[in-house]
Amino acid sequence: MPTTVRTRVAIVGAGPAGLILSQLLADAGLGSIVVDSRSRTEIESTIRAGILEQNTVDLLRTIDPATRVDTVGHRHDGIELRFGDVGEGHRIDFPSLVGRSVWLYPQHEVLKDLLALRLAAEQDLRFGVTVEGVDDGDPVHPAIIATDAHGDPVRIEADFVVGADGSRSIVRAAVTGSRSGGYFREYPFAWFGILCEAPPSSDELIYSNSPDGFALISQRSPDVQRMYFQCDPTADPAAPSDAEIWDTLQARVPGTTLNEGPVIQRDVLRFRSVVAHELRRGRVALVGDAAHTVPPTGAKGMNLAIADVVLLADALRALLTEGDGQLIDTYADRALDRIWKAQHFSWWMTSMLHVAPDASDFDRRRQLGELRTVLESEAGRTYLAEAYTGWSIEPPKR
Amino acid sequence: MPTTVRTRVAIVGAGPAGLILSQLLADAGLGSIVVDSRSRTEIESTIRAGILEQNTVDLLRTIDPATRVDTVGHRHDGIELRFGDVGEGHRIDFPSLVGRSVWLYPQHEVLKDLLALRLAAEQDLRFGVTVEGVDDGDPVHPAIIATDAHGDPVRIEADFVVGADGSRSIVRAAVTGSRSGGYFREYPFAWFGILCEAPPSSDELIYSNSPDGFALISQRSPDVQRMYFQCDPTADPAAPSDAEIWDTLQARVPGTTLNEGPVIQRDVLRFRSVVAHELRRGRVALVGDAAHTVPPTGAKGMNLAIADVVLLADALRALLTEGDGQLIDTYADRALDRIWKAQHFSWWMTSMLHVAPDASDFDRRRQLGELRTVLESEAGRTYLAEAYTGWSIEPPKR
Repeated sequence: MPTTVRTRVAIVGAGPAGLILSQLLADAGLGSIVVDSRSRTEIESTIRAGILEQNTVDLLRTIDPATRVDTVGHRHDGIELRFGDVGEGHRIDFPSLVGRSVWLYPQHEVLKDLLALRLAAEQDLRFGVTVEGVDDGDPVHPAIIATDAHGDPVRIEADFVVGADGSRSIVRAAVTGSRSGGYFREYPFAWFGILCEAPPSSDELIYSNSPDGFALISQRSPDVQRMYFQCDPTADPAAPSDAEIWDTLQARVPGTTLNEGPVIQRDVLRFRSVVAHELRRGRVALVGDAAHTVPPTGAKGMNLAIADVVLLADALRALLTEGDGQLIDTYADRALDRIWKAQHFSWWMTSMLHVAPDASDFDRRRQLGELRTVLESEAGRTYLAEAYTGWSIEPPKR
Repeated sequence: MPTTVRTRVAIVGAGPAGLILSQLLADAGLGSIVVDSRSRTEIESTIRAGILEQNTVDLLRTIDPATRVDTVGHRHDGIELRFGDVGEGHRIDFPSLVGRSVWLYPQHEVLKDLLALRLAAEQDLRFGVTVEGVDDGDPVHPAIIATDAHGDPVRIEADFVVGADGSRSIVRAAVTGSRSGGYFREYPFAWFGILCEAPPSSDELIYSNSPDGFALISQRSPDVQRMYFQCDPTADPAAPSDAEIWDTLQARVPGTTLNEGPVIQRDVLRFRSVVAHELRRGRVALVGDAAHTVPPTGAKGMNLAIADVVLLADALRALLTEGDGQLIDTYADRALDRIWKAQHFSWWMTSMLHVAPDASDFDRRRQLGELRTVLESEAGRTYLAEAYTGWSIEPPKR
């Protein structure tokens, strides 16, 4: 017999979505248990990029007075888009266009803050718990079936189960009927990402559509840079020498000389767009990467997860403290409104900035025409800045 | 021996581009001969659509005090974009967004005005002249080799030859080395267009992306409507009955009941994007459809031709009255800046509003996400309105 525990909301996944949800539920007087298959150390050391929208930063500041987003993170008031043979550059100035900014604050740093916040509040947070599935036989008391860190079976009964367990979500099967599938798009390229020991080559991010392909010049710390360049999806991260990597990067940012240094990490990031066919079934719902994946060009991943959570927390509060099911019934539609806008934005930034392997000469010139049309227009820059810094969390009434 | 005539500028094609060019050259004191293979009656009766940008209307008013753009034409202060199962509609209000408008004024009406204008000014304007080619053996005195309306050979020697002779341009070969070719894109759909005897169903244009495909609700006069719907490029215009046409149109504009009436004309418009590889060689240059073709969704065709002409007229004035070749040397690059923006806009409107035959469920939902992102944002609507009403003629300095 498994150990059985009871909670109001069982949350699978201690990433940003799951941890913020536990905080917002606690604020509404709702207890939760958060489980994750990884250890705390693994969670805190999984390096992932992090551009935080203004909305996300506003929320982190509200729920966590100790957030280090302004001390360890860096506010960025713009990005540069660069294109063409000679590297024609156009800066998009966020504050003057939309009165907002973004923050470069890597996801693992966000997670350190959130774990500390929730553990200090005595959140029931269980690491090393492997979830096998959801028992939704009782329509109002779904349960998580899992094995704890000691290998013992555990059953977590709840009033609601949330899958915040990433792109390989286990909970997804209880919502969509299948662990795989969904609305899907693949891209004919990937990003070759490096961390290297050298000071930043630029104060802000540079998105460069060069004749040889895309490159993104980014930062990590005063001594470490994060850079990416478009590559074949089958590329082997170990194959190129450091010198070859630098040759590729330098050639793709005409007009800037990059600071070179030892490459200390390399990886190849696949590009995929996915949206689950359903986001909720009965008392089980999905948030974040369990519900959708976006290609990284639009920097929307973590922000979109948190936008889901804000909607879901409010819906759970209404359902579980007031017995009002209206918001949970519309959760999926309301979340999908933003999700498809973010999917579009991520696809758009990807399409506008990368060189598709099968692009014709017409396509290539049209793409440069598009970059000029957007960047020469204040309205075009504003339209892009609104999306990049993040639309308001609740979609406008229509 | 052919009859030989001399002029400063020989213009092939008495469409809007050629006629406006002759006027602008006359204003600069430069004589020209305009030839066209068609008769005046043919030119005036070839029915083509016509949305005129603010720039175009401003120019017509400047060169032709008798223009009927405000009496026979109609100012339109907006368009509606509609999408989804229930026909969610968003109007784009041009004056409040960009302080500009467009005019619905069919091309053959523009041509009647321009022919009257030029003939009253005693322009040398020759109908029924078949051009066989350009003799560019003398680098500063190119000549047109042609046969006149009586079947007699004629040679028109000039200081400059302009090909304003449409998408099947003869002059193009003297510039690009070939009558065909260019940067090219084809689309997997076409427009089925009708003229029908019924009063307008809407005061303004409605661009509708319905689940069954695109439709455009347009107007012609108080008694005649012009409508289009997306069809297969191989569709036979004679095949559907009037009732079938109306069923298709009504289904594609959910939320509006169209005024039906006898269909008096039907045609299938192919969609192509083309830009010639070169726009000028020596003293021969191309303008309008001879240089580029755009799909009709962005309503850019005639406007782009006229924008070319404004640049070229200024360059010819500098070259032929002041001996200054700087503007003609940069004509192609400056024209191409706008041409590629217009190619992008036309591709974008086409892609955003049509249902591609091979569109996945992901593509379809992303497209609706795009429409929402653009239309819910004032910046998005402004960006679209800037392009639709026309960017300023001289591209911004960079």
